Amino acid sequence: MRTLHTALVHYPILDAQGGIVTTAITNLDIHDIARSSKSYGCESYYLVHPVAAQRELVERIQGHWRDGASGKRIPDRKAALEIVRCVPTLDDLYAEFGGREHVELWATSARREGVTLTTYREARALLAGDGLPVCLIFGTGWGMPRAVLDACDRLIEPISSAASAYNHLSVRAAAAISLDRLRGAG
Amino acid sequence: MRTLHTALVHYPILDAQGGIVTTAITNLDIHDIARSSKSYGCESYYLVHPVAAQRELVERIQGHWRDGASGKRIPDRKAALEIVRCVPTLDDLYAEFGGREHVELWATSARREGVTLTTYREARALLAGDGLPVCLIFGTGWGMPRAVLDACDRLIEPISSAASAYNHLSVRAAAAISLDRLRGAG
Repeated sequence: MRTLHTALVHYPILDAQGGIVTTAITNLDIHDIARSSKSYGCESYYLVHPVAAQRELVERIQGHWRDGASGKRIPDRKAALEIVRCVPTLDDLYAEFGGREHVELWATSARREGVTLTTYREARALLAGDGLPVCLIFGTGWGMPRAVLDACDRLIEPISSAASAYNHLSVRAAAAISLDRLRGAG
Repeated sequence: MRTLHTALVHYPILDAQGGIVTTAITNLDIHDIARSSKSYGCESYYLVHPVAAQRELVERIQGHWRDGASGKRIPDRKAALEIVRCVPTLDDLYAEFGGREHVELWATSARREGVTLTTYREARALLAGDGLPVCLIFGTGWGMPRAVLDACDRLIEPISSAASAYNHLSVRAAAAISLDRLRGAG
């Protein structure tokens, strides 16, 4: 079984008008995606943010859970926050694995035209086999720009439901569902 | 296909010591679970809270998205918040369906002993057939007391992963995964 990692990208990110922006770190994105990542056996969860003060905020929150009263009160939360890592850029993310060629980047894509999409069923089988570590990357804001998606090794089909044409999941919900489809029991 | 609804219970709820408490409403619980519910075709998402000021807070947030600038900026968010309803108690929740006998309550259970659990596969098939409306109820805090779970029509197996013994999902993540397992495509 390959090792699995998650990453939440705050730059480069699209805004509503298609411009490139840096998004702010959201406290519940740290907690929720760390808890989901840990529950599905991910070895690390990276927050990619270029602003040092934002990365320090994450480290202060981690310290609060590692050394403070909260970690004693809810040990499970402490264990989840222990897998959180902060990196300034995507290049720094690749460096964590020893370079871009030593990690497969997988992302989900809302676009269906002009790309080859992997189904969750295929992705699940690929993950259960042998190979490089896989890092699932998720975008904040209005998602990651096309250049970042094009540089991924694999784009996974969008999450959808036959019961609704509406699709506007939070990144916290989308990450949880992706992990469950890739590594859930049953 | 049966109609599906979600509910997030803030009383009666267990605290870490097993006492019965009322939990506070969390803003992202409103947004995330509304968005997930809408994405999986739920007709309504109920927040069950006994304190009028907390229900009014939800209604102010809804008004902000219904009538304010945010709803124009992100129409998809507005559509999700339109399915949110507030009720003071579980009895008021049942009354929304015309009484307890006119709705099936389903909950997930972390307990495996002494109860008959429905698998997600079975629950998915039951939901696709004919029958009463189904309301999936989720607990905040340390979960719902045993008496509430015992009064449910169906308890669904816990969400788990073969990749990890750790299981500490947020309620936002658990609701998203449950909906995807019950109504996701593919």
